[in-house]
Amino acid sequence: MSGNTIGKIFCLTTFGESHGEATGGVIDGCPAGLDIDYSFIQKELDRRKPGQSDIVTVRKEPDKVEFISGIFKGKTLGTPIGFIIKNTNQHTEDYEYLKNVFRPSHADYTYQKKYGIRDYRGGGRASARETVARVVAGAVAKLVLNKYKISINGYVSQIGDIKLNKNYKELDLSDIENNIVRCPDQSVANKMIDMLRKVKSENDSIGGIVSCVVKGVAPGLGEPVFDKLNADLAKAMLSINTAKGFDYGSGFENIKLKGSEQNDIFMAKNGKVSTITNYSGGIQGGISNGEDIYFRVAFKPVATILKKQKTVDIHGDNVEFEPKGRHDICVLPRAVPVVEAMAAIVLLDHLLRNKTCRL
Amino acid sequence: MSGNTIGKIFCLTTFGESHGEATGGVIDGCPAGLDIDYSFIQKELDRRKPGQSDIVTVRKEPDKVEFISGIFKGKTLGTPIGFIIKNTNQHTEDYEYLKNVFRPSHADYTYQKKYGIRDYRGGGRASARETVARVVAGAVAKLVLNKYKISINGYVSQIGDIKLNKNYKELDLSDIENNIVRCPDQSVANKMIDMLRKVKSENDSIGGIVSCVVKGVAPGLGEPVFDKLNADLAKAMLSINTAKGFDYGSGFENIKLKGSEQNDIFMAKNGKVSTITNYSGGIQGGISNGEDIYFRVAFKPVATILKKQKTVDIHGDNVEFEPKGRHDICVLPRAVPVVEAMAAIVLLDHLLRNKTCRL
Amino acid sequence: MSGNTIGKIFCLTTFGESHGEATGGVIDGCPAGLDIDYSFIQKELDRRKPGQSDIVTVRKEPDKVEFISGIFKGKTLGTPIGFIIKNTNQHTEDYEYLKNVFRPSHADYTYQKKYGIRDYRGGGRASARETVARVVAGAVAKLVLNKYKISINGYVSQIGDIKLNKNYKELDLSDIENNIVRCPDQSVANKMIDMLRKVKSENDSIGGIVSCVVKGVAPGLGEPVFDKLNADLAKAMLSINTAKGFDYGSGFENIKLKGSEQNDIFMAKNGKVSTITNYSGGIQGGISNGEDIYFRVAFKPVATILKKQKTVDIHGDNVEFEPKGRHDICVLPRAVPVVEAMAAIVLLDHLLRNKTCRL
Amino acid sequence: MSGNTIGKIFCLTTFGESHGEATGGVIDGCPAGLDIDYSFIQKELDRRKPGQSDIVTVRKEPDKVEFISGIFKGKTLGTPIGFIIKNTNQHTEDYEYLKNVFRPSHADYTYQKKYGIRDYRGGGRASARETVARVVAGAVAKLVLNKYKISINGYVSQIGDIKLNKNYKELDLSDIENNIVRCPDQSVANKMIDMLRKVKSENDSIGGIVSCVVKGVAPGLGEPVFDKLNADLAKAMLSINTAKGFDYGSGFENIKLKGSEQNDIFMAKNGKVSTITNYSGGIQGGISNGEDIYFRVAFKPVATILKKQKTVDIHGDNVEFEPKGRHDICVLPRAVPVVEAMAAIVLLDHLLRNKTCRL
Repeated sequence: MSGNTIGKIFCLTTFGESHGEATGGVIDGCPAGLDIDYSFIQKELDRRKPGQSDIVTVRKEPDKVEFISGIFKGKTLGTPIGFIIKNTNQHTEDYEYLKNVFRPSHADYTYQKKYGIRDYRGGGRASARETVARVVAGAVAKLVLNKYKISINGYVSQIGDIKLNKNYKELDLSDIENNIVRCPDQSVANKMIDMLRKVKSENDSIGGIVSCVVKGVAPGLGEPVFDKLNADLAKAMLSINTAKGFDYGSGFENIKLKGSEQNDIFMAKNGKVSTITNYSGGIQGGISNGEDIYFRVAFKPVATILKKQKTVDIHGDNVEFEPKGRHDICVLPRAVPVVEAMAAIVLLDHLLRNKTCRL
Repeated sequence: MSGNTIGKIFCLTTFGESHGEATGGVIDGCPAGLDIDYSFIQKELDRRKPGQSDIVTVRKEPDKVEFISGIFKGKTLGTPIGFIIKNTNQHTEDYEYLKNVFRPSHADYTYQKKYGIRDYRGGGRASARETVARVVAGAVAKLVLNKYKISINGYVSQIGDIKLNKNYKELDLSDIENNIVRCPDQSVANKMIDMLRKVKSENDSIGGIVSCVVKGVAPGLGEPVFDKLNADLAKAMLSINTAKGFDYGSGFENIKLKGSEQNDIFMAKNGKVSTITNYSGGIQGGISNGEDIYFRVAFKPVATILKKQKTVDIHGDNVEFEPKGRHDICVLPRAVPVVEAMAAIVLLDHLLRNKTCRL
Repeated sequence: MSGNTIGKIFCLTTFGESHGEATGGVIDGCPAGLDIDYSFIQKELDRRKPGQSDIVTVRKEPDKVEFISGIFKGKTLGTPIGFIIKNTNQHTEDYEYLKNVFRPSHADYTYQKKYGIRDYRGGGRASARETVARVVAGAVAKLVLNKYKISINGYVSQIGDIKLNKNYKELDLSDIENNIVRCPDQSVANKMIDMLRKVKSENDSIGGIVSCVVKGVAPGLGEPVFDKLNADLAKAMLSINTAKGFDYGSGFENIKLKGSEQNDIFMAKNGKVSTITNYSGGIQGGISNGEDIYFRVAFKPVATILKKQKTVDIHGDNVEFEPKGRHDICVLPRAVPVVEAMAAIVLLDHLLRNKTCRL
Repeated sequence: MSGNTIGKIFCLTTFGESHGEATGGVIDGCPAGLDIDYSFIQKELDRRKPGQSDIVTVRKEPDKVEFISGIFKGKTLGTPIGFIIKNTNQHTEDYEYLKNVFRPSHADYTYQKKYGIRDYRGGGRASARETVARVVAGAVAKLVLNKYKISINGYVSQIGDIKLNKNYKELDLSDIENNIVRCPDQSVANKMIDMLRKVKSENDSIGGIVSCVVKGVAPGLGEPVFDKLNADLAKAMLSINTAKGFDYGSGFENIKLKGSEQNDIFMAKNGKVSTITNYSGGIQGGISNGEDIYFRVAFKPVATILKKQKTVDIHGDNVEFEPKGRHDICVLPRAVPVVEAMAAIVLLDHLLRNKTCRL
């Protein structure tokens, strides 16, 4: 009810402020009998963690997950999987200077207005630090989805005005991890990296788009009418910090195409039904149709920029403010595993929900 | 759990297939003591109903809502408000020819694969007919929101490649209902209407964008971290038939702008805090900040086009198919009240949720 | 959230005031492909309906259910099943004399205090009329449970101080429907009927106990730790009007027995594990163990008695009050199908939930 | 969905196996701005903890709670409160001998059948160790309820056949903590303690009843029709390990009383409405009426007894089994704070829910 849980059967609840002792989560509804591949989970965390390259924040966090429950001798028990990731960085900076100021385009003001109190050490609960718990749950979900041959691949398809003008089918998704920006086209990646270094030198920040492709989903996932698969994906993606938009299939970009141009014609071949085109993005009437699911998530620039800005303080006075510390100039490279994690959580939840719909 | 309910406190459950006896809903959690303005609710339904102009389907449905419970002597009781809208049109066409065919880009195939059975009379549960119940609930929600001085205005901002290139602040939103396409700029509206008539003459269909502005929302609505106000709006919008995308504030369109260009600077004036710009779209950290909330929803063209198309039937054979009857060529004009209704439902739900967050 | 829905996968939402146009419900999450046996459903409603004998209210209601959605050609679609039962009796009595008075031990006072408004025509939403929708949903649930060979039998085991002093294993449950009080032991039934006629002649009312036995439940239903099968049964039973208590297995009655006396010893025989005794009532650690589930529900006397009683009115004045009309003197015979219906809803919900717990 | 969460607004999710690293929980929906009284919370834990007297298990656990999130400078933030209690005792005994055996009247068999796997070190997730997290959340809830002058007092009213034959109004509830059995009548307490010592000497176990009184609840808490206050209390109580029954108000014990004898007559005095008697137990139509709420919970004897018993092993063979270690012979004294905690959670949840029901 207070918004810290997502999912109906495979459920993730997260807790933790960015500069508290730890960030954690509880995964409830993970099927029993799953082999937990700890090194895979850590690898996913490493894709999200700070300090992995010069285009993301140089802040260091080991981001080691400690599982507290729900796993016995390497297998899930069917009981809730509690876990924490210690915030090792929480005492290294003095955040008292943030105590009374509302940083522009941050959540300081809205939390204060909502709750009458806030943890002013960094973003508190509104910090992107919270997404570390999502990546843990997403990694567990991926381990289950693997059993169903479902794969999820996100990549950076736009940063600022540098855009990857290719359909995902023209790309080799196995190249995504081959560069620090996580764009599978190396030449575009190079331009993105150059731009990010330039933005960094200007003490500014920049946004972009993460695209994501899900392969191997059988027909039938998604619930009419409100919990359409696309609706739940939209919610999951917009719940990520700084996300500003979501579209799937033909999306915003193909609005000029008419019905005759974007209807996906069914074709039967060797007993298998598929569609010739896939403007539907693998989802029709809110339910997967067996084709690839693909969608995009728009992210705004990081609000923290190392410049002096005008703002307002807790007393309602106009003040000036300049942030300290080390910050991302662009969340996109680190957002890729978070987008994938949220997709994994939604897909597994719907996969489990779908087990109950027929006699 | 099966996806037919939206909301946590103000909850709407809908039921009904398009060609069954009736479409209906249950509103649970509407505050007690609300005066029900029946003529306002009917007016909202009339904005959605078919047959209102030559650019939407000419099919006729009176769309009269019958309230069954939860209202006594014109006031809400706090108990569930059950209602139905009879489907008067359900016997006028013979749908047997749809029995075995999967219409392209419709939900026939996915429902059949999910449930092993479907109501083939029209779209059944996947029909946009279901949105009539959303408009009823949205109208009730608007009656409550009126008490809080919250207004919601949707309008058509793009059809095909005809785009309204103005910010909502440059528009007079009271002009929205002055033309049949629901675009508040009359000259753009004329172009849209011309295009729709042309698409109609071609037996084709076309999509577009609905923009929506919410004014009067106090700071504090929205729940971290998964039930962010923007996340719940995204889900609600993507749950509407044929919706393909959602963005809010800077969205997909302002990705080239840097942090220094799109941070919203707070300013205090006469004891009131506001932001100079509003790239945040009225939501920061998932919580309303008191500025206008604005967002866009992309809709694909209607899948039904009065042309012969190839497809597959229930036996897995390749066949040809040509629809009969009267259909919308573009959902946009009729989608405006649906977008507003879903926004109203989400906002009222969060307004009520917000009553519990402080001691 | 407002309490009008029960279940997580197989969900029932009810609506309707006792003297409004209709009482209704929405069943969401019923598996697709179920053959609806309308005559069975009506038979269940007939077991609950008023006027069936001289020991229950002589008020007449046909209690015919009209299904609005979710069923096509006699089979469930997997979509929500909306239904209504018209309240044919709603205009036959004048309820204005109840407008300002709070009837003793009724819900008039609490509804007025909670909502600031109430439907004073009879019990409104608090009326036992609401249980008619539960019986419809329970009958649908039973149709599914039949496929799993699960049977549910309730019976009256106590009325006032007349008690059926036999374990359910000593009874022939097929005798339950052979008398109007629904007690499977005819000699005890006769005593109960005599007592009820005496209570009726005194214009008084009386309570009692319904016992219920569920056979055929496989091991594994029930979710640790809060949604234990026994916990969800307890909630479902206590949600029935005038229910005051629930126990299962050894319950309140065997508290004097020590652990050595009531531990249920497992025994393997021909590859099948069972317990020699069944003090556990078929549930261990909140999960079914394959043995019979049995429980009891205590009901207080009906609050309406045809006597003058002191009470308070809406203005806070002490007044006298005497009810009019025809009322049950004892809910027990008609509560039996309601207890069974609630048990069926809980069991089916857990049966469906259990489909998702293993890899 | 998997049953590890209770509440709709004030929600507790628990996690942890008895012999894992820790037991923990997440409280979501606690109002912001609450002063956390750590010593009060610890005091509540101390009432539940093992080793507090010779009539409970002599096993020692410090049961110190560590809060991880949601509290800043001693005040709640409105964000989720994550916490853990380390299981210091988890390596002191060898549980391998339990690996293949299903202990009688324990949850070993049902967990194995449900999940195909179980943590056999003690009761795992089914252990009463899980209730330590409930006591933490209950203590936090009590801190909020204190602000509303709501008090909750549980006490042991029966052990075996030794029964406290007094109404709660005849007792001095401040005496509850004055003896180790938590019975406010010292002479009955003495008999209970004698009995417990005798049962201990016999290596047997015994059950009983906890009674609980809630004072200070304003009218209006509870939601019709399924989430009646009594229904949610019943569920919460039956979710406690070894609980077998629940009743409130007139309950099972007053079934012989007729309507004329147990209707609670309203009376107005000095502008305040109350009832002369309180057979309703403070709840009418599922909603609190302002009178004291009182209820009883029946607990069966602890299943573990230090005797050799027959049982079945994981291979389906008949075997003999004798437990090792130190165990409670009776949960009642330690169940009192758990009953109170669950009552506090339910009441606070409904108190918060009730904030949204009126315009």
